[in-house]
Amino acid sequence: MKKPTIECCLSPALIDLYNVEESNVVIIDIFRATSTIAAALGNGANKIIPVDDVQECIKLGAEIENSVTAGERNGQIAEGLQYGNSPSTYKADFIAGKNLVLTTTNGTRLLYKVKHAQEIISGAFLNLGATAQYLAKQNKPLILACASWKDRFNLEDTLFAGALYNQLKEVYDTDCDSMRAAHHLYSLAKNNLFEFLRDGAHFNRLEKYGLTDDLKYCCKVDAQNNLIKFQDGELRIF
Amino acid sequence: MKKPTIECCLSPALIDLYNVEESNVVIIDIFRATSTIAAALGNGANKIIPVDDVQECIKLGAEIENSVTAGERNGQIAEGLQYGNSPSTYKADFIAGKNLVLTTTNGTRLLYKVKHAQEIISGAFLNLGATAQYLAKQNKPLILACASWKDRFNLEDTLFAGALYNQLKEVYDTDCDSMRAAHHLYSLAKNNLFEFLRDGAHFNRLEKYGLTDDLKYCCKVDAQNNLIKFQDGELRIF
Repeated sequence: MKKPTIECCLSPALIDLYNVEESNVVIIDIFRATSTIAAALGNGANKIIPVDDVQECIKLGAEIENSVTAGERNGQIAEGLQYGNSPSTYKADFIAGKNLVLTTTNGTRLLYKVKHAQEIISGAFLNLGATAQYLAKQNKPLILACASWKDRFNLEDTLFAGALYNQLKEVYDTDCDSMRAAHHLYSLAKNNLFEFLRDGAHFNRLEKYGLTDDLKYCCKVDAQNNLIKFQDGELRIF
Repeated sequence: MKKPTIECCLSPALIDLYNVEESNVVIIDIFRATSTIAAALGNGANKIIPVDDVQECIKLGAEIENSVTAGERNGQIAEGLQYGNSPSTYKADFIAGKNLVLTTTNGTRLLYKVKHAQEIISGAFLNLGATAQYLAKQNKPLILACASWKDRFNLEDTLFAGALYNQLKEVYDTDCDSMRAAHHLYSLAKNNLFEFLRDGAHFNRLEKYGLTDDLKYCCKVDAQNNLIKFQDGELRIF
């Protein structure tokens, strides 16, 4: 049987080069949207409603029962929202049973850019294994879409794409140089993701805000190991 | 003294994210425009006039004395032109003293996208050393711009960016993850560039056209070691 293809898109600015509509897409925003999503749902959040705008976030937060508004702009809590984008904030005793309305600089923006994909899956190191296990059984073209930082390539999202490819390389075919590069980078970094990412642009940005523990948490493989999909405007565990 | 910055742009589709006008820019199209440029000038071509259109290439070829028209579309000789984009074609007994009018799929397109840069330098493995030596003395922001393949990231251009950075890292500062990734990839590939690039999308494309020797030649470090700049519409040795 012919294997399905796997490709990696390094920046939302390049997504139009890919056939999104006929593919499954994994959205990747390691620092920190998809890590926050994995943590909040893993710790019992009912669902997450991603929105691309702070005002919309506030509005929905007022409308939806039992909700929490959260999000960041430029790495810090956005004005008017209750919480930021720190995965380690979303502990079970706070988030279990709640609906999280979330907006982030890059992650939610990417999500809306790929909204016509066959399926949209949210991937992070925290839920790498569950994501790979599900995708290994899907016989459809797959695009690993990095949220990047304001359209600029970043190391952490690319590294995750490489890690995911590493688990899928026997069941998918690739002729995508971005995918090859991501896998090469992962081969260099796999024994210590956190150390490798310490020399990264967004790492440096967030570390200055005192978020080092948060970044360490984002590098924990399979610590919140659930398959997460975006369907009908919501992110939920499947 | 504060060091100038160095950044890497992985695709022409991302070039608007960079401050081109205040920077020196190295254009990189290893397979094969900037390798052809290095070979033809190294073997005595008088100058190269890059044009972005096949018809314009034919027209200029008819107007300019002692000229040769050359170029490719999709990796093969473009209809109506005399020669292709094979660096190994441009031997001294053929090209010395001639004016080459050249159009390529990605390289010349990138060149016109960065035309407002402070200086434009043409870089390839063939002239890596001379390029690095010149840039080490320039106290200006530097952008290493990969021509890529129809806006898609490719391994060979990125690898060259990493090789150039490797020679410049003591004199430039970077906070660019693309630059870091290019350098990591180079660290994996440096002992055998050709072998590393054998598993690459454009390599596979060109190998099918029987161009393997050409690709081997493109990986020869410092084999045509001249500084090449684009000035007043022409590429020449400086």
